Amino acid sequence: MHSFTKIVLNPIGFVKTNAGGDEVRNSSLISQIVLRDDLIKGLDGISGFSHLFVLFYLNQISDEQRKTLKIHPRGRQDMPLTGVFAARTMLRPNPIGLTLVELLNVDGNILTVRGLDAFDGTPVLDLKPYDFWDKIENPKVPAWWKKLNQGNCKT
Amino acid sequence: MHSFTKIVLNPIGFVKTNAGGDEVRNSSLISQIVLRDDLIKGLDGISGFSHLFVLFYLNQISDEQRKTLKIHPRGRQDMPLTGVFAARTMLRPNPIGLTLVELLNVDGNILTVRGLDAFDGTPVLDLKPYDFWDKIENPKVPAWWKKLNQGNCKT
Repeated sequence: MHSFTKIVLNPIGFVKTNAGGDEVRNSSLISQIVLRDDLIKGLDGISGFSHLFVLFYLNQISDEQRKTLKIHPRGRQDMPLTGVFAARTMLRPNPIGLTLVELLNVDGNILTVRGLDAFDGTPVLDLKPYDFWDKIENPKVPAWWKKLNQGNCKT
Repeated sequence: MHSFTKIVLNPIGFVKTNAGGDEVRNSSLISQIVLRDDLIKGLDGISGFSHLFVLFYLNQISDEQRKTLKIHPRGRQDMPLTGVFAARTMLRPNPIGLTLVELLNVDGNILTVRGLDAFDGTPVLDLKPYDFWDKIENPKVPAWWKKLNQGNCKT
Protein backbone atom coordinates (compact mmCIF):
# COMPACT_ATOMS: atom_id res chain seq x y z
CA MET A 1 0.00 0.00 0.00
CA HIS A 2 1.09 3.57 -0.58
CA SER A 3 2.27 5.83 2.18
CA PHE A 4 -0.27 8.42 3.25
CA THR A 5 1.88 11.48 2.63
CA LYS A 6 0.40 14.78 3.62
CA ILE A 7 -0.17 17.30 0.86
CA VAL A 8 0.60 20.98 1.33
CA LEU A 9 -1.08 23.67 -0.75
CA ASN A 10 -0.98 27.46 -0.81
CA PRO A 11 -3.97 29.65 -1.67
CA ILE A 12 -3.78 31.30 -5.09
CA GLY A 13 -6.12 34.05 -3.92
CA PHE A 14 -9.21 34.83 -1.87
CA VAL A 15 -12.95 35.32 -2.28
CA LYS A 16 -14.38 38.81 -1.77
CA THR A 17 -18.10 39.19 -1.12
CA ASN A 18 -20.45 41.25 1.00
CA ALA A 19 -22.88 38.34 1.30
CA GLY A 20 -23.06 36.46 4.57
CA GLY A 21 -24.80 33.35 5.89
CA ASP A 22 -27.19 31.63 3.53
CA GLU A 23 -27.01 34.52 1.04
CA VAL A 24 -23.92 32.89 -0.47
CA ARG A 25 -26.11 30.03 -1.69
CA ASN A 26 -28.03 32.33 -4.02
CA SER A 27 -27.02 31.17 -7.48
CA SER A 28 -27.28 34.71 -8.86
CA LEU A 29 -24.86 36.11 -6.27
CA ILE A 30 -21.99 38.08 -7.77
CA SER A 31 -18.65 37.88 -5.98
CA GLN A 32 -15.00 38.48 -6.73
CA ILE A 33 -11.90 36.37 -6.69
CA VAL A 34 -8.77 38.34 -5.86
CA LEU A 35 -5.81 36.46 -7.30
CA ARG A 36 -2.29 36.76 -5.91
CA ASP A 37 -0.38 39.41 -7.86
CA ASP A 38 2.43 37.00 -8.75
CA LEU A 39 -0.03 34.70 -10.57
CA ILE A 40 -1.72 37.21 -12.89
CA LYS A 41 -0.08 35.77 -16.03
CA GLY A 42 -1.87 32.50 -15.30
CA LEU A 43 -5.16 34.20 -16.24
CA ASP A 44 -4.15 34.89 -19.86
CA GLY A 45 -6.91 33.70 -22.16
CA ILE A 46 -9.38 32.89 -19.39
CA SER A 47 -12.06 35.23 -20.77
CA GLY A 48 -12.36 32.93 -23.78
CA PHE A 49 -14.39 30.71 -21.47
CA SER A 50 -17.86 31.57 -20.15
CA HIS A 51 -17.70 29.31 -17.10
CA LEU A 52 -15.07 28.21 -14.58
CA PHE A 53 -14.70 25.68 -11.83
CA VAL A 54 -13.53 27.32 -8.63
CA LEU A 55 -11.77 25.06 -6.15
CA PHE A 56 -11.59 26.57 -2.69
CA TYR A 57 -10.66 25.58 0.82
CA LEU A 58 -13.52 25.43 3.32
CA ASN A 59 -11.46 26.93 6.13
CA GLN A 60 -14.36 27.14 8.54
CA ILE A 61 -14.58 23.33 8.79
CA SER A 62 -12.96 22.01 11.95
CA ASP A 63 -10.81 18.88 12.27
CA GLU A 64 -13.71 17.30 14.14
CA GLN A 65 -16.17 18.12 11.31
CA ARG A 66 -13.78 16.56 8.79
CA LYS A 67 -14.45 13.21 10.44
CA THR A 68 -18.13 13.33 9.40
CA LEU A 69 -18.98 10.46 7.03
CA LYS A 70 -22.78 10.71 6.72
CA ILE A 71 -25.10 13.69 6.52
CA HIS A 72 -28.67 14.59 5.63
CA PRO A 73 -28.39 16.64 2.41
CA ARG A 74 -28.62 20.34 3.24
CA GLY A 75 -29.31 19.36 6.87
CA ARG A 76 -32.88 18.36 6.02
CA GLN A 77 -34.20 15.50 8.12
CA ASP A 78 -36.60 14.50 5.33
CA MET A 79 -33.58 13.65 3.18
CA PRO A 80 -31.91 10.24 3.53
CA LEU A 81 -28.76 9.83 5.58
CA THR A 82 -26.13 9.92 2.86
CA GLY A 83 -22.38 9.40 2.59
CA VAL A 84 -20.40 12.63 2.29
CA PHE A 85 -18.93 11.46 -1.07
CA ALA A 86 -22.48 11.13 -2.40
CA ALA A 87 -23.25 14.75 -1.54
CA ARG A 88 -21.79 18.21 -2.06
CA THR A 89 -21.79 18.97 1.68
CA MET A 90 -18.97 21.09 3.15
CA LEU A 91 -18.38 18.35 5.71
CA ARG A 92 -15.83 16.02 4.13
CA PRO A 93 -12.39 14.59 4.95
CA ASN A 94 -10.67 17.12 2.69
CA PRO A 95 -12.87 20.21 2.82
CA ILE A 96 -12.39 21.38 -0.75
CA GLY A 97 -15.30 23.23 -2.33
CA LEU A 98 -15.98 22.86 -6.05
CA THR A 99 -18.39 25.29 -7.66
CA LEU A 100 -19.14 26.04 -11.27
CA VAL A 101 -19.44 29.79 -11.81
CA GLU A 102 -20.14 32.14 -14.68
CA LEU A 103 -17.16 34.36 -15.49
CA LEU A 104 -18.43 37.92 -15.89
CA ASN A 105 -15.27 40.01 -15.98
CA VAL A 106 -11.51 39.94 -15.55
CA ASP A 107 -9.66 43.10 -14.54
CA GLY A 108 -6.01 42.61 -13.61
CA ASN A 109 -6.01 40.15 -10.72
CA ILE A 110 -9.75 40.51 -10.02
CA LEU A 111 -12.27 38.06 -11.46
CA THR A 112 -15.96 38.85 -11.13
CA VAL A 113 -18.10 35.72 -11.11
CA ARG A 114 -21.72 34.70 -10.64
CA GLY A 115 -22.80 31.78 -8.46
CA LEU A 116 -19.87 31.25 -6.12
CA ASP A 117 -21.17 29.87 -2.81
CA ALA A 118 -18.13 30.80 -0.74
CA PHE A 119 -17.77 33.20 2.16
CA ASP A 120 -15.67 36.34 2.21
CA GLY A 121 -12.00 35.53 2.77
CA THR A 122 -12.25 31.92 1.59
CA PRO A 123 -8.87 30.73 0.25
CA VAL A 124 -9.04 29.80 -3.44
CA LEU A 125 -6.97 26.77 -4.53
CA ASP A 126 -7.44 26.62 -8.28
CA LEU A 127 -9.43 27.87 -11.27
CA LYS A 128 -10.22 25.57 -14.18
CA PRO A 129 -12.10 26.41 -17.37
CA TYR A 130 -15.35 24.55 -18.06
CA ASP A 131 -15.44 22.76 -21.39
CA PHE A 132 -17.62 20.27 -23.24
CA TRP A 133 -16.02 17.27 -21.52
CA ASP A 134 -17.66 18.53 -18.32
CA LYS A 135 -21.13 18.39 -19.83
CA ILE A 136 -23.05 15.15 -19.36
CA GLU A 137 -26.24 14.98 -21.39
CA ASN A 138 -28.32 12.80 -19.09
CA PRO A 139 -26.67 12.31 -15.71
CA LYS A 140 -28.40 10.00 -13.25
CA VAL A 141 -29.10 11.53 -9.84
CA PRO A 142 -31.01 9.99 -6.91
CA ALA A 143 -34.65 10.79 -6.15
CA TRP A 144 -33.64 12.84 -3.06
CA TRP A 145 -31.58 15.16 -5.22
CA LYS A 146 -34.53 15.92 -7.48
CA LYS A 147 -36.79 16.51 -4.48
CA LEU A 148 -34.21 18.78 -2.82
CA ASN A 149 -33.77 20.88 -5.95
CA GLN A 150 -37.39 20.93 -7.02
CA GLY A 151 -38.40 24.34 -8.30
CA ASN A 152 -34.87 25.66 -8.75
CA CYS A 153 -33.55 22.58 -10.50
CA LYS A 154 -32.01 22.79 -13.96
CA THR A 155 -33.42 19.42 -15.04
CA MET B 1 -4.92 41.22 3.15
CA HIS B 2 -5.34 37.70 4.44
CA SER B 3 -2.46 35.62 5.66
CA PHE B 4 -1.36 32.95 3.20
CA THR B 5 -1.77 29.99 5.51
CA LYS B 6 -0.67 26.66 4.16
CA ILE B 7 -3.31 24.00 3.77
CA VAL B 8 -2.67 20.39 4.70
CA LEU B 9 -4.67 17.53 3.19
CA ASN B 10 -4.55 13.75 3.47
CA PRO B 11 -5.37 11.38 0.60
CA ILE B 12 -8.71 9.60 0.93
CA GLY B 13 -7.46 6.79 -1.32
CA PHE B 14 -5.42 5.97 -4.40
CA VAL B 15 -5.89 5.29 -8.10
CA LYS B 16 -5.25 1.76 -9.37
CA THR B 17 -4.65 1.24 -13.08
CA ASN B 18 -2.48 -0.83 -15.40
CA ALA B 19 -2.37 1.96 -17.96
CA GLY B 20 0.81 4.01 -18.27
CA GLY B 21 1.93 7.09 -20.20
CA ASP B 22 -0.54 8.59 -22.63
CA GLU B 23 -2.87 5.59 -22.25
CA VAL B 24 -4.41 7.30 -19.21
CA ARG B 25 -5.80 10.01 -21.49
CA ASN B 26 -8.05 7.51 -23.24
CA SER B 27 -11.55 8.54 -22.22
CA SER B 28 -12.79 4.95 -22.29
CA LEU B 29 -10.07 3.77 -19.87
CA ILE B 30 -11.43 1.88 -16.88
CA SER B 31 -9.59 2.31 -13.59
CA GLN B 32 -10.23 1.85 -9.91
CA ILE B 33 -10.23 4.09 -6.90
CA VAL B 34 -9.25 2.31 -3.70
CA LEU B 35 -10.71 4.26 -0.80
CA ARG B 36 -9.24 4.18 2.70
CA ASP B 37 -11.03 1.55 4.78
CA ASP B 38 -11.98 4.04 7.48
CA LEU B 39 -13.94 6.14 4.97
CA ILE B 40 -16.19 3.45 3.43
CA LYS B 41 -19.35 4.83 5.07
CA GLY B 42 -18.80 8.05 3.12
CA LEU B 43 -19.73 6.14 -0.06
CA ASP B 44 -23.29 5.35 1.05
CA GLY B 45 -25.70 6.31 -1.70
CA ILE B 46 -23.02 7.11 -4.26
CA SER B 47 -24.34 4.60 -6.81
CA GLY B 48 -27.46 6.76 -7.13
CA PHE B 49 -25.29 8.97 -9.32
CA SER B 50 -24.00 8.00 -12.77
CA HIS B 51 -21.06 10.41 -12.79
CA LEU B 52 -18.55 11.73 -10.27
CA PHE B 53 -15.91 14.39 -10.08
CA VAL B 54 -12.62 12.96 -8.90
CA LEU B 55 -10.20 15.40 -7.30
CA PHE B 56 -6.68 14.07 -7.13
CA TYR B 57 -3.20 15.26 -6.32
CA LEU B 58 -0.76 15.37 -9.24
CA ASN B 59 2.15 14.09 -7.17
CA GLN B 60 4.53 13.87 -10.14
CA ILE B 61 4.58 17.68 -10.52
CA SER B 62 7.73 19.23 -9.03
CA ASP B 63 7.95 22.46 -7.04
CA GLU B 64 9.67 24.00 -10.05
CA GLN B 65 6.84 22.93 -12.39
CA ARG B 66 4.29 24.48 -10.01
CA LYS B 67 5.76 27.87 -10.89
CA THR B 68 4.67 27.53 -14.54
CA LEU B 69 2.15 30.25 -15.46
CA LYS B 70 1.78 29.82 -19.21
CA ILE B 71 1.67 26.74 -21.41
CA HIS B 72 0.76 25.62 -24.92
CA PRO B 73 -2.37 23.45 -24.47
CA ARG B 74 -1.37 19.78 -24.56
CA GLY B 75 2.20 20.92 -25.38
CA ARG B 76 1.24 21.71 -28.98
CA GLN B 77 3.17 24.59 -30.46
CA ASP B 78 0.29 25.36 -32.85
CA MET B 79 -1.83 26.24 -29.82
CA PRO B 80 -1.61 29.73 -28.30
CA LEU B 81 0.49 30.37 -25.21
CA THR B 82 -2.20 30.27 -22.53
CA GLY B 83 -2.41 30.95 -18.79
CA VAL B 84 -2.53 27.82 -16.66
CA PHE B 85 -5.90 28.89 -15.17
CA ALA B 86 -7.32 28.99 -18.72
CA ALA B 87 -6.30 25.38 -19.34
CA ARG B 88 -6.62 21.98 -17.71
CA THR B 89 -2.86 21.37 -17.78
CA MET B 90 -1.23 19.45 -14.91
CA LEU B 91 1.21 22.34 -14.47
CA ARG B 92 -0.43 24.69 -11.98
CA PRO B 93 0.40 26.33 -8.63
CA ASN B 94 -1.73 23.78 -6.76
CA PRO B 95 -1.48 20.60 -8.82
CA ILE B 96 -4.99 19.30 -8.21
CA GLY B 97 -6.54 17.25 -11.00
CA LEU B 98 -10.29 17.42 -11.61
CA THR B 99 -11.83 14.81 -13.88
CA LEU B 100 -15.41 13.87 -14.50
CA VAL B 101 -15.79 10.08 -14.63
CA GLU B 102 -18.56 7.58 -15.15
CA LEU B 103 -19.21 5.46 -12.07
CA LEU B 104 -19.47 1.83 -13.16
CA ASN B 105 -19.42 -0.10 -9.91
CA VAL B 106 -18.92 0.15 -6.16
CA ASP B 107 -17.72 -2.88 -4.20
CA GLY B 108 -16.74 -2.18 -0.59
CA ASN B 109 -13.97 0.40 -0.76
CA ILE B 110 -13.33 -0.09 -4.50
CA LEU B 111 -14.93 2.18 -7.10
CA THR B 112 -14.64 1.24 -10.74
CA VAL B 113 -14.78 4.27 -13.02
CA ARG B 114 -14.43 5.12 -16.70
CA GLY B 115 -12.43 8.09 -17.98
CA LEU B 116 -10.05 8.85 -15.12
CA ASP B 117 -6.84 10.32 -16.55
CA ALA B 118 -4.67 9.64 -13.50
CA PHE B 119 -1.67 7.38 -13.09
CA ASP B 120 -1.42 4.34 -10.86
CA GLY B 121 -0.83 5.36 -7.25
CA THR B 122 -2.17 8.89 -7.64
CA PRO B 123 -3.50 10.18 -4.29
CA VAL B 124 -7.23 10.92 -4.42
CA LEU B 125 -8.41 13.99 -2.47
CA ASP B 126 -12.18 13.95 -2.86
CA LEU B 127 -15.14 12.48 -4.73
CA LYS B 128 -18.17 14.60 -5.55
CA PRO B 129 -21.36 13.55 -7.33
CA TYR B 130 -22.20 15.23 -10.65
CA ASP B 131 -25.60 16.86 -10.74
CA PHE B 132 -27.61 19.16 -12.98
CA TRP B 133 -25.99 22.30 -11.55
CA ASP B 134 -22.78 21.10 -13.22
CA LYS B 135 -24.35 21.02 -16.64
CA ILE B 136 -24.07 24.20 -18.73
CA GLU B 137 -26.17 24.11 -21.86
CA ASN B 138 -24.02 26.30 -24.10
CA PRO B 139 -20.65 27.02 -22.55
CA LYS B 140 -18.33 29.35 -24.44
CA VAL B 141 -14.86 27.96 -25.13
CA PRO B 142 -12.04 29.54 -27.17
CA ALA B 143 -11.32 28.64 -30.79
CA TRP B 144 -8.13 26.78 -29.77
CA TRP B 145 -10.13 24.43 -27.55
CA LYS B 146 -12.40 23.45 -30.43
CA LYS B 147 -9.43 22.89 -32.70
CA LEU B 148 -7.62 20.81 -30.08
CA ASN B 149 -10.63 18.59 -29.47
CA GLN B 150 -11.77 18.30 -33.07
CA GLY B 151 -12.87 14.80 -33.88
CA ASN B 152 -13.19 13.62 -30.30
CA CYS B 153 -15.09 16.65 -29.11
CA LYS B 154 -18.49 16.36 -27.47
CA THR B 155 -19.76 19.63 -29.00
